[in-house]
Formats: sequence, C-alpha cells, structure tokens
Amino acid sequence: MAHIAFLGLGNMGGPMAANLIKAGHSVVGFDPVEASLERHAAAGGSAAKSIAGAVDGADVVVSMLPTGAHVHAAYVEQGGVFAVARKGALFIDCSTIDVEDAREVGNAAKAAGFGFIDAPVSGGVGGAAAGTLTFMVGGDEADVEAARPFLELMGKTIVHAGGLGTGQAAKICNNMILGISMIAVAEGFVLAEKLGLDAQKLYDISSKSSGQCWSMTSYCPVPGPVPASPANRDYAPGFAAAMMLKDLKLAQDAARTAGASTPLGAQAAQLYQVFCQNGGAATDFSGIIKLLRGA
Amino acid sequence: MAHIAFLGLGNMGGPMAANLIKAGHSVVGFDPVEASLERHAAAGGSAAKSIAGAVDGADVVVSMLPTGAHVHAAYVEQGGVFAVARKGALFIDCSTIDVEDAREVGNAAKAAGFGFIDAPVSGGVGGAAAGTLTFMVGGDEADVEAARPFLELMGKTIVHAGGLGTGQAAKICNNMILGISMIAVAEGFVLAEKLGLDAQKLYDISSKSSGQCWSMTSYCPVPGPVPASPANRDYAPGFAAAMMLKDLKLAQDAARTAGASTPLGAQAAQLYQVFCQNGGAATDFSGIIKLLRGA
Amino acid sequence: MAHIAFLGLGNMGGPMAANLIKAGHSVVGFDPVEASLERHAAAGGSAAKSIAGAVDGADVVVSMLPTGAHVHAAYVEQGGVFAVARKGALFIDCSTIDVEDAREVGNAAKAAGFGFIDAPVSGGVGGAAAGTLTFMVGGDEADVEAARPFLELMGKTIVHAGGLGTGQAAKICNNMILGISMIAVAEGFVLAEKLGLDAQKLYDISSKSSGQCWSMTSYCPVPGPVPASPANRDYAPGFAAAMMLKDLKLAQDAARTAGASTPLGAQAAQLYQVFCQNGGAATDFSGIIKLLRGA
Amino acid sequence: MAHIAFLGLGNMGGPMAANLIKAGHSVVGFDPVEASLERHAAAGGSAAKSIAGAVDGADVVVSMLPTGAHVHAAYVEQGGVFAVARKGALFIDCSTIDVEDAREVGNAAKAAGFGFIDAPVSGGVGGAAAGTLTFMVGGDEADVEAARPFLELMGKTIVHAGGLGTGQAAKICNNMILGISMIAVAEGFVLAEKLGLDAQKLYDISSKSSGQCWSMTSYCPVPGPVPASPANRDYAPGFAAAMMLKDLKLAQDAARTAGASTPLGAQAAQLYQVFCQNGGAATDFSGIIKLLRGA
Repeated sequence: MAHIAFLGLGNMGGPMAANLIKAGHSVVGFDPVEASLERHAAAGGSAAKSIAGAVDGADVVVSMLPTGAHVHAAYVEQGGVFAVARKGALFIDCSTIDVEDAREVGNAAKAAGFGFIDAPVSGGVGGAAAGTLTFMVGGDEADVEAARPFLELMGKTIVHAGGLGTGQAAKICNNMILGISMIAVAEGFVLAEKLGLDAQKLYDISSKSSGQCWSMTSYCPVPGPVPASPANRDYAPGFAAAMMLKDLKLAQDAARTAGASTPLGAQAAQLYQVFCQNGGAATDFSGIIKLLRGA
Repeated sequence: MAHIAFLGLGNMGGPMAANLIKAGHSVVGFDPVEASLERHAAAGGSAAKSIAGAVDGADVVVSMLPTGAHVHAAYVEQGGVFAVARKGALFIDCSTIDVEDAREVGNAAKAAGFGFIDAPVSGGVGGAAAGTLTFMVGGDEADVEAARPFLELMGKTIVHAGGLGTGQAAKICNNMILGISMIAVAEGFVLAEKLGLDAQKLYDISSKSSGQCWSMTSYCPVPGPVPASPANRDYAPGFAAAMMLKDLKLAQDAARTAGASTPLGAQAAQLYQVFCQNGGAATDFSGIIKLLRGA
Repeated sequence: MAHIAFLGLGNMGGPMAANLIKAGHSVVGFDPVEASLERHAAAGGSAAKSIAGAVDGADVVVSMLPTGAHVHAAYVEQGGVFAVARKGALFIDCSTIDVEDAREVGNAAKAAGFGFIDAPVSGGVGGAAAGTLTFMVGGDEADVEAARPFLELMGKTIVHAGGLGTGQAAKICNNMILGISMIAVAEGFVLAEKLGLDAQKLYDISSKSSGQCWSMTSYCPVPGPVPASPANRDYAPGFAAAMMLKDLKLAQDAARTAGASTPLGAQAAQLYQVFCQNGGAATDFSGIIKLLRGA
Repeated sequence: MAHIAFLGLGNMGGPMAANLIKAGHSVVGFDPVEASLERHAAAGGSAAKSIAGAVDGADVVVSMLPTGAHVHAAYVEQGGVFAVARKGALFIDCSTIDVEDAREVGNAAKAAGFGFIDAPVSGGVGGAAAGTLTFMVGGDEADVEAARPFLELMGKTIVHAGGLGTGQAAKICNNMILGISMIAVAEGFVLAEKLGLDAQKLYDISSKSSGQCWSMTSYCPVPGPVPASPANRDYAPGFAAAMMLKDLKLAQDAARTAGASTPLGAQAAQLYQVFCQNGGAATDFSGIIKLLRGA
C-alpha cells in the first residue's frame, strides 16, 4: 500500500482521509487544528507535527485546503511540499481555488519533477463520508492515471477535464451556472406566489418544460415539491450560502483574468454577498429565496 | 361537431386551426392578413370578414393574438367577441399576454356569462403543426373541462394551473427561468473557452451535475454537445431572441405589478434587449452567446 | 382671481393648494380623506363632496394624485373632470405617472377642447410648503403660458420640456439617474470603508473629481461630509425609499414601452425593491447603504 | 537638485518625467520601448539600459507602470528597485494598481528602510503634459511631505488620502462611481430620446437637479449640451473604454478582497466588457451610449 500524506483534515479532508485509511493505506496527516488531528488518529491515521513531517517519504500527497494562498504556502514555501517530497511524488490537490493559482502551483510542481493534478470535488461532506464524491480532474494523462486508484477510494465519478487547471475550471463554470440558476428558480417561485400560482403547479409544469434545472428538480427552494430539499428543513445546509458565494467569487476571479463577460455570474455573486452580509451566510444557498421574498 | 371561431391565423394560429379542422370541426377564422385567411381556407376553414362575422353563432372562440391590447380589443371593444357571442359560449385565449390583461378580460367574460380560460402554449410553430403543444391553463374546473376536447386536438399536454390568469403566470415564470438559465449556460461555456476547458468536457461534467438545465442538455448554445440545437445551424431559430425578449418583458411587467423582486429576470431582459438592438433579434435566443463572447 | 379646482389634497397637494389660496385664488378641493379636506378648509379653501362638485365652474383644474389609474379615473371616467369642466378649462396634472398615461389623458383632453399640461414636480413636501417646487412641464406653448401664473405661485423653477408627456419623461429620466447614482455613491463609500479609506477623504477627493454627483455633494449617504443630509439623522426621510422605488418602476415602465435599454436603471429598481421588502421602505433612499454594508 | 529615476516613460510617464526635467532635476529613465527612451532623451533626460541602471544612486524613484505585476517585478524581483536603491531612497508609484498589490510592495519597501507612497493620478495625458494632474496619495506623513515637491512639478492637486494603499483606494472608488454614473447618464439620455424628450431639455433640467453629475455636466455623452465632450467628436477618446474597464475591474478586485457589495459596480464592469469586446475598446468611455442605443 502507499504512504500518503494528507494536508487539511477538516470537514472534507477528514472523511476523505478516513476512506484512504479504510482501504489499507498508511495516511500521515497534518492540520493546524488539534481536534482534526485527533479525529484523524482515531480513524487510524498518523498525525504529523508539520507539513514537512507529513510529506517526508510520502508517495502521494493529497491536499484539501481553503484557499489558493493556503495551497501556495503549503506546496511552494520554505519547508513545504516541494522542499520535502521525494522525487517523482504525486500531488493531488482537491482544494477549490483560483484556476490561476492551481496552474501556477501545478506548473511549478511539474517543472520540479513531481506529478500534479487539480482535482476539486463536488458532493459535500456527505459525499466525502460516503466516498461518493465527484472529482473534476486537470493534469496530464499519466498523472491522472496514477491518481485514479486513490480517487476511486474517495469518489464515485472521476472526470478528466483536460490539462492542468481544467479541473478547477470545470468546477467553477458548473458552480457559476448553479448559483445563477438557483436564484432564477427562486425568482420564478416568488413571482408565482405573488401572481397567485401555486408552487406545486409551477413545479409540475416547469420541471417538464424548458425551465427545468437541477436547482428546481433536485433542490427546489420552496418546501413541498422536492421533500428532500433543504427548503423542507427550514433551509438548514446542505450547501451554505457562504460556500456558494466563495465559488461565485472564484468564478468572477477566473472571468476577470480570462477576460470573459459574465454579467449574470457577477450579479449572482453580488446577490449572495448581500444575502450573506444580511444574516444568510450559514443558511442553505437555496435560502436566498428569503431575501427575494422579503421579510 | 362544434362551430368554432378562430381569431388570429398566423404562424401559430393557422396550424392550430388546421388541427381543429382535421378533426371535423367547422372553423370560421378571422385575421387582418389576407394571406393568413387564404391559407385557412385552403386548409378547409371558412374565412370571415370581421371578428363579429367569425364569432356569430360560434360555440367556442379560440384566439391567438400578439398582445394584451389585441386581446382586449378583440373581446371587449365595440363589435367584438362579447358583443356578438351567444350566451354561454366558451372562450379559449391562447395568446401570451400580461397576467393582468388576461385576468381583466377573463373576469369580464365570466361576469357576462361566458366561459373563459387563459391557455398560453409552448412548443412553437413545430408543436402547433404537429398538434403536440403544451397548454398551461387558467380558469375554473368547468371551463377547463369544456375546453379540454378542443385543446387535445391541438396539444399533447394540458396542465390546469389554477384560476384565471395562472396559465399566463405559469408560462411567464417558466420562460423567465429559461431566459436566465440560457444566459447562465452561455456564460459558463464562454468562461470555459477562455479558461482552456473544452466545451464537450464541460458538457459531460455539468450535464450530470448541479449545473444541469434544459438550456444545456436540450438546447446547448455551443455546437457539438447537442447536435439538434440551433447552435449547430448557425443559430437559426428555433425560438427567436425577439420572442424571448417579449416573454422576459411580460415577466417584468408581472413582477412589477405583483411587487416581486426579480433581479436576474430584469437583467436577462436587459441583456436580450441589448442583443436584439445590436443585430440579434432574428437569431435563435441561444445566440446571445455571441454578444457575451464578443466579435 | 381664478376659480381653481384642486384634486388631491395630501402631503403635496395640500400645501400646493394653500399657496394658491394665499395668492387670493378661490380653490375648491376634493380628496377622499376627510382630514385632508378639513386641513384645506382651515387654510381657506372650500371642500367639495366629489370631483364633479369641485370641478363645476372651474377655470383651472390642478391634480396631484398617486397613480396613472387615479388620474385616468378622475379625468376620464363617468362624472369626472371631462364630463363636468367648462369648455376651454385648463388642466394641470402635477401627479408623477407613466408617460403613456399622461399622454393618453392629455391627448383626450386636447381632443375634447380643453387645455392640458403634465407638470410633475420635484422638491418634496418642503418645496411644496415653501412654494419652491420645480415643475417639469409638457404641453403646447399656449397651455404652458396659461398655466405659468399658477405654477409660479407653487414653484420657483418652471421648465417647459416639450410636448405632452415630456414633463413626466424629464422627471423620470432625472430620477432614474438619481436612483442609480445614489447606489453608486453608497457602493463607493462602503468600498472605501472596507479598504481603510476615510469617508471624509473620499468625499474631499471625489467631490472635486469625475465621480462628483448631487447624491454625493448634496445628499451624502454617510454621516459627516454633508451635515444636512439624512445620513446625519439616522436616515429619516427626506425622500423615502418607497418613493424612489415608485419612480424607478415608472422609469422601467417607460423604458419597456419605449424600447430603451436601461440595465442599471433596472438593477437599481430591483435593489430598491429588495431594500424596501426587507424593512427599508420608510427609510430615506440614501439608507440603501445599510443593505450594501450588511448588518 | 535631485537625482530621480523614472520607470515607465509611456503616454503618461513620458510627459511627467519631462516636467521634472524642466524643473532642473536630473532624470534617468528606463522603459522597454526604444521610442519612449528616445523621446525621454530628446526632452533632456538620460536613458538607462535597465531598471538597475536607472535606480543606481537615485534619491527618488518614480514609477508609472501598467499593472501590479509590473510594479511587483520592477520593485521586488531580482535586480529590481529594492536590490539597487540606496538606503532611504523615496519611491513614488504613480501606477493605478490593485490596492492589495500597492500595500504589499509598499509595506515591503517600508520594512526594507525605504520611503514609499502610492500616488495614482487623474487628469489623463493632457494633465500629464500640462503638469496639472491630481495625485491621490497614500503613505505616512513624512514620505508624503518628502514627495510633495516632486508631485507639485507634475500636478496641481495633491490629496493625502491616508495610509499606504489609500491613494489607490481613493482613485478606484472615484472611478467606480464614475463608470456607473456615465452609464446612468447614457441610459437617461437614450430613454429621453425614445420618449420624445429633447436631449438639451433633459440636460437643462437635470443638470440643475438631483440627477446632476460630472458625467453629465462635464462630459455629456450626447453631442450638443457640452460642446467640449468627446460625444461632439464622434467619441474619440478622451478616456478610452478599455481604460475605464481596467479601472472597473480593479474596483471589483478590491471589492472582492475587502468583502464589499458593489452590485452596480459589478454590472458596470460587465457592460464595459461587453462594449469593449464588441468593438468599443478604443472609443471614448462615453461611447457606451452606442451599445445602449443599439445599431
């Protein structure tokens, strides 16, 4: 079995590392939060005292960190992954970060003789625990194939999107479409309410028509039509609005750098920011309907 | 068989009337455009010289007119449908108009002892010809059931959305969601392009993920992933941008009157207006990707 | 002196009528609210029991009503102004209504042999009381000149904007620019705050630079730089957000009918609607900075 | 007199350096473009072969570079300003860059014992040539005072906005307000046109009313009311739309990093991007009225 270093053992990284341990791999983890390290040890992992301690001797390094700055610091800076990892080690960064940051760190890794893929996920903490995550992967064929056996222990769907950075790009494009479409569906249901059209009727019609989208048919922002959606549990996340905002801001960063026009993506980010700053940050992202409906 | 009056024999009304004729009904039509009357006669219908001429003695009046003003004029004004129709005649207005206008004319009809349903359609000229339209119907139970045999000759799906006006409401809410989501998908594919992510890869990932919507999986605005979509035919309509704009403006009218907040619906209307005014009016509505991508 | 009928004796109409009375004119008023009639009588006016009662024998009819529907009802409907007024009477509508509604009523008045100008105002209740309102006037030269002596008793600035409806158009274009620019200035000051730039410094620089606008230099939305602005009185109106929203919606109606693209005007209307529906309706319109800043 | 190093001798830097030379200072300049160096020499400056060559022995370094990446490279990287400058040298960065980048470079400079101010300008190439620029300055009191004699040779107005980065912040907040307000005024004039209200009439009313702003009264986007505005010269810049877009994107970067909600600022950036990508990049920024009016 492989010796895996796992950097970032939080809500996502902890369960992901646990699935690698269950499969028999030796996983040495690092996280600045003591409780995360303890949970990792309780799951059968080893806790290192530093990034270097975790990475030393590892065949594979998996990272699940909050931002591009964290990823840059962990890999590139003094005493980081590049400095300590053995030649030819494979790096799997599962963080959701700027496409530019992923390409910068990834290219530097390749230039230094390492393997590197960007492999952000969807499926949330539930998918992490159940090992059913979707990985959207960027990198060269060899690195993706070398990573596949490990990804398969943490996820159900692995899609090779293209070269370095395209994993991040796929996630961020998908999530920009998602954020816009959730607001669209919320607007549609609020408009229906105020026009005297019953929510279930709108759902029955639109879910089979040209307005159909995942936000409506898998995650309906009004209670009733989709009993499993957070709207039925008073908008308890799910996927918090603060997390949706993070992804919408990453999409705007990417659009800005790449020179892409994204007027609705920009407006969706602004609406989620107003929602988060006016009390909605910890609500499920479908709870934005409450801002639109008004108090 | 019934004696049906059909007001408005254009691109939609013409084929719809033809399906009623095929079923053996007597259909007397009126349209100010001579060519439309001739086509109606060629299909086996009778051509009247006026609205009154068509409506006199009719059991059922079907209308398919461009705007609420046309509907108001045809039904309410001197020598119009109300003045001529026999007691208890049933009115089926299939026009896509302001919810308020539909409710005003409908309520007036009911007060005058007539039957009335608002029954706007989706399915376009193709659906009209094939008799596979979807009707979204508003009105009371009795009127809807009385209308059903006639609707079934012109359409495949009939959904009773609620009371008067809810047919219009359902259509306009669905189409607002559609307009926003088409722009969202267009933005996603343009962003992917500029990030070096292949369109087919984005489609493969997002069509099975939380960004999935009809605009992507049935009508993809880039050529390739959905071979039947207008993007593969240089954006020949389909559903013209000018028609999408009409519906988005009706949604904004409804929102304005009902006091509903629809920030993305408002922005989608503005973007389609800029697109239409800068050469895109006759393009398929998925062609808005061209405005976003730039020349 | 003239016999003037005054329809609508509320917060604006009451003080405006009082200024006509002070100048020695006989003013017969009507308002459905008893208290408004009593205040009018206390100011020296006569109270009529109906519109017809007020208009009978009047040389001039002044109206200050909430919506186009009110104006249409008062002038056009049975027993209204057109039915009762003497031939050649002059109508001065000071309501802020849809350009289309103003043109419809105005054209009908002209066709029936009356004089008519649309003369919406700015200057608020303070300007109404002080007789310093600005009138933006639409109508033909003769009617405007006939109205001038009366307008001069209620206002300080009278601008003849053009033909019928251009008074409304001027007000609504100005107020659309105002609504957008107030949000722009609020965004600028919130951004400055979060970047560590002192509000007074931003004011000192921008008020003399290309970002200068009335919203900043006469009505600054942060306390301090403009001591008289409502921001210094906890955003007590002033000009309530609900009134700004009304005007922004009228602008969108006008844009919709006239086929004008107004993306920021549309977004400003949406932001004011979200603000009003989330508790801000009675706040001064500069209080929208609170929505942007977050709780 | 001082020995000044001037990095970046383009459209802005060239004339700015020339004003320092005219005052008798020795100015050694560097620019990668040969023609810029030649123009500098012709104005009486010395041309260096590299940044290091220019900075060696300088008391003051002035920089006018296109982006934060250029500034970072010039100051921080190997052989750059930090490496070569004498202890206590004063750095004056006049580039318009991200607040974050300015703070990063400025803090590093201060930590290394240098003086540093961010001093972006307004006034364009005309102001640069005439020595009438406005400097918005961030930095500590001592550095600002040390820089003042040099700034006064290049500009007419020097405002100390606060600590490091506040110069950039002031410029970017002002220019965000400017970009939004130019679009607002353009929307107002297009709406007026389509409502039959003469542009000069709208100007006469609004320029003295609550809609007044610099974009209207100093730079009116329709020909006529302000004869000196680019609208009267077929929208020849002036201030190109591409430059306005650059500033609006910097504002969005700042807002994103600082967590500020800027919905209209975001939309203004998107509209200018669509305009630039559809042929308007080299047009004066007031030319955005053409996109709104349509072809």
